[in-house]
Amino acid sequence: MMTALDSPPLGLVLDDIVRRHRPRSEAGSLPANIPHLSSLPFDRFGIAVATVSGDVFSAGDADLPFSIQSISKVFTLAMALSAGDPAALWSRVLREPSGTSFNSLVQLEVEHGIPRNPFINSGALVVTDHLMGRYPDAAGEVLRFLTDQVGHQSGRKGPFIDEVAARSELSNSSRNLALAHFLKDFGNLRRPAEAVVANYVRQCSIMMTCVEMAKAGLFLAQGGRGAFGAVVSRSEAKRIGSVMLTCGMYDAAGEFAYRVGLPGKSGVGGGILAIVPGECCICVWSPRLDSKGNSLAGTAALADLSDRTGWSVF
Amino acid sequence: MMTALDSPPLGLVLDDIVRRHRPRSEAGSLPANIPHLSSLPFDRFGIAVATVSGDVFSAGDADLPFSIQSISKVFTLAMALSAGDPAALWSRVLREPSGTSFNSLVQLEVEHGIPRNPFINSGALVVTDHLMGRYPDAAGEVLRFLTDQVGHQSGRKGPFIDEVAARSELSNSSRNLALAHFLKDFGNLRRPAEAVVANYVRQCSIMMTCVEMAKAGLFLAQGGRGAFGAVVSRSEAKRIGSVMLTCGMYDAAGEFAYRVGLPGKSGVGGGILAIVPGECCICVWSPRLDSKGNSLAGTAALADLSDRTGWSVF
Amino acid sequence: MMTALDSPPLGLVLDDIVRRHRPRSEAGSLPANIPHLSSLPFDRFGIAVATVSGDVFSAGDADLPFSIQSISKVFTLAMALSAGDPAALWSRVLREPSGTSFNSLVQLEVEHGIPRNPFINSGALVVTDHLMGRYPDAAGEVLRFLTDQVGHQSGRKGPFIDEVAARSELSNSSRNLALAHFLKDFGNLRRPAEAVVANYVRQCSIMMTCVEMAKAGLFLAQGGRGAFGAVVSRSEAKRIGSVMLTCGMYDAAGEFAYRVGLPGKSGVGGGILAIVPGECCICVWSPRLDSKGNSLAGTAALADLSDRTGWSVF
Amino acid sequence: MMTALDSPPLGLVLDDIVRRHRPRSEAGSLPANIPHLSSLPFDRFGIAVATVSGDVFSAGDADLPFSIQSISKVFTLAMALSAGDPAALWSRVLREPSGTSFNSLVQLEVEHGIPRNPFINSGALVVTDHLMGRYPDAAGEVLRFLTDQVGHQSGRKGPFIDEVAARSELSNSSRNLALAHFLKDFGNLRRPAEAVVANYVRQCSIMMTCVEMAKAGLFLAQGGRGAFGAVVSRSEAKRIGSVMLTCGMYDAAGEFAYRVGLPGKSGVGGGILAIVPGECCICVWSPRLDSKGNSLAGTAALADLSDRTGWSVF
Repeated sequence: MMTALDSPPLGLVLDDIVRRHRPRSEAGSLPANIPHLSSLPFDRFGIAVATVSGDVFSAGDADLPFSIQSISKVFTLAMALSAGDPAALWSRVLREPSGTSFNSLVQLEVEHGIPRNPFINSGALVVTDHLMGRYPDAAGEVLRFLTDQVGHQSGRKGPFIDEVAARSELSNSSRNLALAHFLKDFGNLRRPAEAVVANYVRQCSIMMTCVEMAKAGLFLAQGGRGAFGAVVSRSEAKRIGSVMLTCGMYDAAGEFAYRVGLPGKSGVGGGILAIVPGECCICVWSPRLDSKGNSLAGTAALADLSDRTGWSVF
Repeated sequence: MMTALDSPPLGLVLDDIVRRHRPRSEAGSLPANIPHLSSLPFDRFGIAVATVSGDVFSAGDADLPFSIQSISKVFTLAMALSAGDPAALWSRVLREPSGTSFNSLVQLEVEHGIPRNPFINSGALVVTDHLMGRYPDAAGEVLRFLTDQVGHQSGRKGPFIDEVAARSELSNSSRNLALAHFLKDFGNLRRPAEAVVANYVRQCSIMMTCVEMAKAGLFLAQGGRGAFGAVVSRSEAKRIGSVMLTCGMYDAAGEFAYRVGLPGKSGVGGGILAIVPGECCICVWSPRLDSKGNSLAGTAALADLSDRTGWSVF
Repeated sequence: MMTALDSPPLGLVLDDIVRRHRPRSEAGSLPANIPHLSSLPFDRFGIAVATVSGDVFSAGDADLPFSIQSISKVFTLAMALSAGDPAALWSRVLREPSGTSFNSLVQLEVEHGIPRNPFINSGALVVTDHLMGRYPDAAGEVLRFLTDQVGHQSGRKGPFIDEVAARSELSNSSRNLALAHFLKDFGNLRRPAEAVVANYVRQCSIMMTCVEMAKAGLFLAQGGRGAFGAVVSRSEAKRIGSVMLTCGMYDAAGEFAYRVGLPGKSGVGGGILAIVPGECCICVWSPRLDSKGNSLAGTAALADLSDRTGWSVF
Repeated sequence: MMTALDSPPLGLVLDDIVRRHRPRSEAGSLPANIPHLSSLPFDRFGIAVATVSGDVFSAGDADLPFSIQSISKVFTLAMALSAGDPAALWSRVLREPSGTSFNSLVQLEVEHGIPRNPFINSGALVVTDHLMGRYPDAAGEVLRFLTDQVGHQSGRKGPFIDEVAARSELSNSSRNLALAHFLKDFGNLRRPAEAVVANYVRQCSIMMTCVEMAKAGLFLAQGGRGAFGAVVSRSEAKRIGSVMLTCGMYDAAGEFAYRVGLPGKSGVGGGILAIVPGECCICVWSPRLDSKGNSLAGTAALADLSDRTGWSVF
């Protein structure tokens, strides 16, 4: 149930959120398998909210770029759905929570090459493969889309791909290559496994600030309408929200729905994107992760913000 | 996003829903392992809506009692949470979607006796065991609660336990006995396996009409307030909603969230309970099931109703 | 390849085996879930060999009775096969290695209630259920068979059931009750789950000495012929040997075949029965177990004995 | 138990085996995923026996070359063990039956990248990777070894790699590439995934006749001694036999041990290699397969031959 925002004003609330949730110790972990993410200071913390009325509030390190990693899956999914033939895409990937690790091959094998949802790695590879059917340079197209949604910002760089990090991740992509070849074996990958993984890794290596991310995701809070018109239809926007709520937080989707009550998508770079339908889009970032791979301080901050504002879909 | 209800009036909408969705053929299946459910006419179809403003609308067979089966898990969970020490309960059962069959032993073994959520059978047995700590006659207590919420109805019987059906199901409960002994082996069952299964089966054998069910579940749409005050706290009500949305429809939770967009809980008796937070509680019933065990016509009717009214949490 | 036994004489070899392998420390573990097995001194070690020529050699604690536990499964299988209709039995249980824990429910579920082999617990319950079709007091019948094979021994008690231990194990049999109810759910158990588990536990609680066990198992080394004629046919004897070799040592069957090269069956009481086809039957006992549940010193002793004598089927 | 071979002479027995077991219909299946194997006439059937006394008996199509496929795993394993540091190899691959499909990724994931045994595909890739540490052209080395063992045969071609078939299989190796990248992800592959798979596929594409295969495998029946001295030590020869018996027939190892009672290794090309320790090496070939992927007529022929000759290790 969503309630109107009362005093205190949102800007002050965000300042207080930063005060309370900015980490003071090295609690939590960093992703061991991605070298360039493991050197970030533990006390980075930023938050931004973009509202349907056009305002943007932010606090903390909301203007520092971070690696969006799996949050890219939300945008790739939206673009793949608008690139054409959603029914064809949904015949290749389900929309059910996975109940197992995000990069598991087990469920893929049991379910004969049909990934459980678009947000586990195997599902994201299928979505990228689908998008490549229209845009062979899928990662470049995702970057263009994000840049458009964010808009021109004088003196700012805007979203960009960290190509050095992408190359580093690509040389360390055995698990994703295994998933891609496995999908290929089941006939559920059209393009070469190596090309799909390369595009996937470059999408994950996009760098954005909390402010940029909140603006880029706003279309999901306003029925699919983005900065330049409809990105997806109203019903597709609602449906992406339902996939985020049930599958967006790795193996902690239920726990996140329980504590926060909002559609969300996290990445191992420490970012979380959350949607308040009809109200606003929230992005929080802090690099240290809990045991499920979600930002430790970010999740706590969103639970706190939901309690203070009453923002929840339930 | 929830929208105000426009014309046509809800009563007419429900009449039309019945016209369009009442089954005309024997499509779908009946639960093979529960004899007394397998003789129902294929064209039974009822729907009822109880609103927060106190109105009740209904159409079709909304006054015929049906076996609530797993929908009872919602009420048992609410009562177990209000019976005391929710933290103790949540240490014994998770809140994550299962990704496997509702009565599977596999995940229980992999996760060392901690069920994934309260709505798979193993989780419901743990919830019943917890409730029995306060009310040894857990099934009787659930029935009393439901009767209270429904209120006195002149000339009507009210909810009741079909004791003949319960005995029949109990003699056919090898799977649930296996689950209960397995939980016991992991130290996650306090009372004797046989007693917990007996209570569980009697809860499942409660008979209610759509109208009664819609009234009984209304507390979940109004922040935990039921017919005689708070059943659970506002935050617990929201949290039960989140568990319904992520885990309420067996292995089709994601698909239901995608098509309908509401917290729901189904039973193999053909009933589905759905919540529109802040607005109303819906109950639909039609006995024939899809391949996942959810009412075929009921799911289609809820998707249609959600489209017509705009009711969705996303 | 089997070779004739050269000097030194077997009695001296066994004495030396005891000297080298009797444990000198508390290495290894005792079965935590079976109280009466957890108090045995760590340095118990016995070995006996019964040959097809009628000799019996022994050394160490070869006359102390120990709990045969899962070694009983070999004898129950032989009796179930001779009790009639082997084809019916083999339609209810496979003969393949399991690749998972001996008391796992996972594989049973994946394979729809057909246990992988007669030596995992679920398979042994099916074998006991089959034997109960002819002998309702299956455990008593197994005891009678063992006593017959061992023969009269003046001043000795002979095999017996430790009824106190059996009652203790029975009150702690949640896992086996879960397996039995699960088999029942799949239609692969004829008698009541509780009765089958009770018989199974009593078989496991039979107490025997190494000398008695070596004599009782000798029929498997001499083509099925026991003390009073054929126990099973020559081909059934060979087949029981093949099941022992591929499935007899829990999840270490391959390792045991690799190190020892003989058909064997172990129990968590620390006993191991091994067969040298055409030559002899060996029983070794020492209570402390390795991580797979097989006797630590017993396995090492058999590997050593195999190396010294050349006894191996390969 | 092995018995001396009585009359009738082995040559006549083999002739009769061919008469009884050469397929008369298209029963069984051909491997759908390997095009060049799917066009073989259903009635091909050959058998050969090479004895430790130097004789070779054969019947049927024993001089037609067939694709050895997974039988190559026996020879690669023997060579990898003799290439150095067996302990290092056995730390990277277990010796336990798998209980799941030969090319499954599930068990590999559950067991953190350590294959269950050297004869499932993941294990064979590790063995090839180990062999490549000494011989980068592992497939060429295996071919040289086989050619040496077979010896010069005037007017005959000897073993050869079907390079056209190898290229075809390589272009269809998504599953093996997935396994190799998965092993790499777990740190259990030294060389590039693509190179290991290429070597593996070329080994599988070696073409041999039954006569050649029986001669090449003879070292396993004579304690490791091959045509030009020791291939492996006596104890390694016994151990390879134990791995064959427990893991050599895909998911039918137990059934094969039960029916035939000999260490064996099959390939989807329809060949089976079987060892009678101290006596002889048998090769049978017929292309149509049973549901587990083993030669239908070949398995039946070996069971028959075992019954007639008494050849069995049990």
